[in-house]
Amino acid sequence: MAEAVETLDGWYCLHDFRTINWSAWKATTSEEREAALSELNKLNGKWEAVEQERNGSFGLYSIVGQKADLLLMHLRPTMEELNEIETEFNKTKLAEFTTPAYSYVSVVELSTYMAKGKDPETDPDIQARLKPILPKWDHICFYPMDKRRVGNDNWYSLSKEDRGKLMYTHGMTGRKYAGKVRQIITGSIGFDDWEWGVTLYAHDVLQFKKLVYEMRFDEVSARYAEFGSFYIGQRMTIDQVPQWLHVN
Amino acid sequence: MAEAVETLDGWYCLHDFRTINWSAWKATTSEEREAALSELNKLNGKWEAVEQERNGSFGLYSIVGQKADLLLMHLRPTMEELNEIETEFNKTKLAEFTTPAYSYVSVVELSTYMAKGKDPETDPDIQARLKPILPKWDHICFYPMDKRRVGNDNWYSLSKEDRGKLMYTHGMTGRKYAGKVRQIITGSIGFDDWEWGVTLYAHDVLQFKKLVYEMRFDEVSARYAEFGSFYIGQRMTIDQVPQWLHVN
Amino acid sequence: MAEAVETLDGWYCLHDFRTINWSAWKATTSEEREAALSELNKLNGKWEAVEQERNGSFGLYSIVGQKADLLLMHLRPTMEELNEIETEFNKTKLAEFTTPAYSYVSVVELSTYMAKGKDPETDPDIQARLKPILPKWDHICFYPMDKRRVGNDNWYSLSKEDRGKLMYTHGMTGRKYAGKVRQIITGSIGFDDWEWGVTLYAHDVLQFKKLVYEMRFDEVSARYAEFGSFYIGQRMTIDQVPQWLHVN
Amino acid sequence: MAEAVETLDGWYCLHDFRTINWSAWKATTSEEREAALSELNKLNGKWEAVEQERNGSFGLYSIVGQKADLLLMHLRPTMEELNEIETEFNKTKLAEFTTPAYSYVSVVELSTYMAKGKDPETDPDIQARLKPILPKWDHICFYPMDKRRVGNDNWYSLSKEDRGKLMYTHGMTGRKYAGKVRQIITGSIGFDDWEWGVTLYAHDVLQFKKLVYEMRFDEVSARYAEFGSFYIGQRMTIDQVPQWLHVN
Amino acid sequence: MAEAVETLDGWYCLHDFRTINWSAWKATTSEEREAALSELNKLNGKWEAVEQERNGSFGLYSIVGQKADLLLMHLRPTMEELNEIETEFNKTKLAEFTTPAYSYVSVVELSTYMAKGKDPETDPDIQARLKPILPKWDHICFYPMDKRRVGNDNWYSLSKEDRGKLMYTHGMTGRKYAGKVRQIITGSIGFDDWEWGVTLYAHDVLQFKKLVYEMRFDEVSARYAEFGSFYIGQRMTIDQVPQWLHVN
Repeated sequence: MAEAVETLDGWYCLHDFRTINWSAWKATTSEEREAALSELNKLNGKWEAVEQERNGSFGLYSIVGQKADLLLMHLRPTMEELNEIETEFNKTKLAEFTTPAYSYVSVVELSTYMAKGKDPETDPDIQARLKPILPKWDHICFYPMDKRRVGNDNWYSLSKEDRGKLMYTHGMTGRKYAGKVRQIITGSIGFDDWEWGVTLYAHDVLQFKKLVYEMRFDEVSARYAEFGSFYIGQRMTIDQVPQWLHVN
Repeated sequence: MAEAVETLDGWYCLHDFRTINWSAWKATTSEEREAALSELNKLNGKWEAVEQERNGSFGLYSIVGQKADLLLMHLRPTMEELNEIETEFNKTKLAEFTTPAYSYVSVVELSTYMAKGKDPETDPDIQARLKPILPKWDHICFYPMDKRRVGNDNWYSLSKEDRGKLMYTHGMTGRKYAGKVRQIITGSIGFDDWEWGVTLYAHDVLQFKKLVYEMRFDEVSARYAEFGSFYIGQRMTIDQVPQWLHVN
Repeated sequence: MAEAVETLDGWYCLHDFRTINWSAWKATTSEEREAALSELNKLNGKWEAVEQERNGSFGLYSIVGQKADLLLMHLRPTMEELNEIETEFNKTKLAEFTTPAYSYVSVVELSTYMAKGKDPETDPDIQARLKPILPKWDHICFYPMDKRRVGNDNWYSLSKEDRGKLMYTHGMTGRKYAGKVRQIITGSIGFDDWEWGVTLYAHDVLQFKKLVYEMRFDEVSARYAEFGSFYIGQRMTIDQVPQWLHVN
Repeated sequence: MAEAVETLDGWYCLHDFRTINWSAWKATTSEEREAALSELNKLNGKWEAVEQERNGSFGLYSIVGQKADLLLMHLRPTMEELNEIETEFNKTKLAEFTTPAYSYVSVVELSTYMAKGKDPETDPDIQARLKPILPKWDHICFYPMDKRRVGNDNWYSLSKEDRGKLMYTHGMTGRKYAGKVRQIITGSIGFDDWEWGVTLYAHDVLQFKKLVYEMRFDEVSARYAEFGSFYIGQRMTIDQVPQWLHVN
Repeated sequence: MAEAVETLDGWYCLHDFRTINWSAWKATTSEEREAALSELNKLNGKWEAVEQERNGSFGLYSIVGQKADLLLMHLRPTMEELNEIETEFNKTKLAEFTTPAYSYVSVVELSTYMAKGKDPETDPDIQARLKPILPKWDHICFYPMDKRRVGNDNWYSLSKEDRGKLMYTHGMTGRKYAGKVRQIITGSIGFDDWEWGVTLYAHDVLQFKKLVYEMRFDEVSARYAEFGSFYIGQRMTIDQVPQWLHVN
């Protein structure tokens, strides 16, 4: 029986992917559309205030392709707050013009490999990583993943030492992309269908491809990783939304 | 041919997950909404009375993420009663504003490992576990699972003794979470698509993640477990429902 | 190349699972509902007459959980009759308030293991099993299954003798449940997506779980069986339908 | 690297499965229904004329179970013609009362094993098989399939000689059903999600089950075949359609 | 740990598959239909102008079978432009009569195997392949694929040299089809659910089948390839659209 690595857990995280029902949006009156945008604007204000006070973080993204049109990503100190935010959005006028596309429930996670010799409760770097303000970088990529448990490729049967080595090498690959790609790892065992969610940020969207491709050759990915769907998008500020949703 | 472990079986169990159709709920009149809530209130009164008389149990939960909005979880001495409850709810006004999201049919199950030297028919501890009153703890987690039958990882080809040892170790991991996580195991072989349903309760939602993650390293999970979808939510009292469903 | 076992084939079988559209059912007039019930009543009379004349059999079941609400199960001497019955039901008023949930097309099958030294064309026991009148027992369980063809666990590469031995042991497990569970095996190779359908009947629903669980340890299940979805329900007489469908 | 067998390719083939929207069909006026039938009748006349001139073939089938109600199967010398036929049907009034259920795009295929010492361009038997007029037999069965590429069971890594032997034995099994079952093999690599489509015809529907079951024990199926969904139905002449679609 | 091959990346690519809602299209007025076509015409003009200026490329295709009716394929220097094009199309009148069927987000990719001794930034052949004008050939075939990571068949654990050899042989198979089939490989690791998208063009649709079938015997496909759905269609010029969408 292998020994579990202890994790450090930070803010809870909701990825809320939505599809716009464009036909209904166009068919409604411009008053209704303005009311929907104004309500979103108000909500966004609340969410930004929370971020200002470092009690959470929020990002709005436009997703490319048919999997979704919109991603609302929220971080909060408690799961209850995420549930409230989700329900509050469900009751908005804009939500009437969206269809749920995919969601992911998780919590920011650091492995204790990272915290060697530091007190995670007070170390400012660790605290900042556990309670991250979402980067205002242009591009976002999200995908969930599992560690494989198949025949001889069973991550959970490896010794803690072997897992540590494999993760270390993997981390080295990631480090090459410092300044180009930022990643937030959220754990979801017990919360959602995959074990981890990976949220990446980049200024240049191509860096996602380079990073994920290069990592795939690391033994930890090649032999032990199973991937879910990939979602790719761009950051939108609240000021860009009216243009994005503008219809004649 | 391996020998089956005999099980002790208690109350039948229905997990009934629903999604709220928020657009329709908002579009209806406030009279209709009040009527729907009042009818739910009445049903809930009936279900609570049954629980008072120890003839079953009931819990209402708000689910996080898009998989579902609502979970109604029922325990009853017979499968027929579950069927009646489900049909009765289907006929309510509130049900008109919900869409089925997922359901699970099972029966509370204890392995006879647990009953060593006791008469399960009269032992009060065993009886209480077979006919459990659902904990009034804040958080709930549900997931179905199978024991694997793949190549060399075939649970059902192991000897009874080997299975017993693996389950014992697994139980030891669980015991570390005593007071933090309570679990109800329901068996569903012959009743639903997975072999077992696991329903967990916690005061601190993070304990679900810690428990499920630590258990994944037990050989019984690492090599022999297949997991379905995970649903995570919070308990709602009937008094909290009007606020939760409140729309302008 | 392994040798196929010859099968004896009897009546053709349609499992027709439906979901009730409760909102639409409630929204229609009570005249429409009465007309729908009266039409079903008439159809049921026809089906019962066929059963009286031993030209087929019919059962009506209420299904627990969200997979389906209703199962109409038909047996007939020809596939054409099943097709007609299905189309006739599709044209009824009640069908307007149902959504197809799942169906299964198969034919009652006995392996010739069972017919040793008997003439299956005339033997009354074999004839009764090939053209079964559906038991009027309270509970029903249906699931489809395959024999596995994966790596070393390839049923279709075993010798006929080995398969016979494994099936014999499996039969012995089943025999323990004589009087508690009755089973109808229907073959569907070439007719539907799985190779067999298993329909079980019991007075006590728990016996399904005990039987299927115990059988899972038989090598034939542990190594060679793949299972589809499980459907569990209760028999309804035609007289119980109005109450079951009653709405205010 | 194994050597590919060259194939002979004939007419292109579209299997177009549809579900009837019975509620909408009943709700429309009898004038609309007559117009829809009359238009189908006209189209069918065109398709029959093409078959008369040996420029293609067409069959209409009623499918048993919920997977589909109707199959329109078309053969034509070019893919473009299939595309036109599909679009033309999509624009008909009857199509308004159908929902797409499944489709399959392929081309009639013979392996060159069959053409030993013959000139396929002129040999009348080969030509007839490459451009087949669909049998007017009562029953039809369709399923798509792949050759497996898993671990040691990798069809595409076998030598051409080994594949030839396995196919020959398989052919021998098929030959036992001469006069009972006719088959049309269509290739779909590069055209659709499976590698081949198998369309079978029989006077006695039970022969499908016997044939597919017996073949499953051939090593080529037992070890190397993966099967998709099975569709089973009966031939309808155009004259039978009004009765089949008749509603009060 | 195997070494990743560096890739050259060119224009970003969106495959946007749509299904026509024929019933709604027929039900609308001819004025609405004309307005929809005129708007598409205008958009197409813009896209053609971009292609004229070598700032992107566009193709319109009619898809055979029920998976989709229409494919709009776009290439652009940036992902942002693809997102804008998608949103712009979503807001058109024609889009109101389409349903999303499938989409694919990727980027034109060449392996550096191809660029030996050339400067990819300036070499005109490489530049033309990285920023391809879509061929105006009659037939199109699209499918996504992965390299397998299963047991002993793990592409990402092979040495760079072994991968190079396997790809070289594969390339030799492809070369036989020079002049018959043109291919555009787009990479999608980090962008979409599969690792690569393959878009093929041919004058004779049968060449797709011959090529993909022959390649399947290459070790790189036989042992290491996993395929998604195949989409097959024909090129449509903007002038052919009114006829294609014409209804009475």
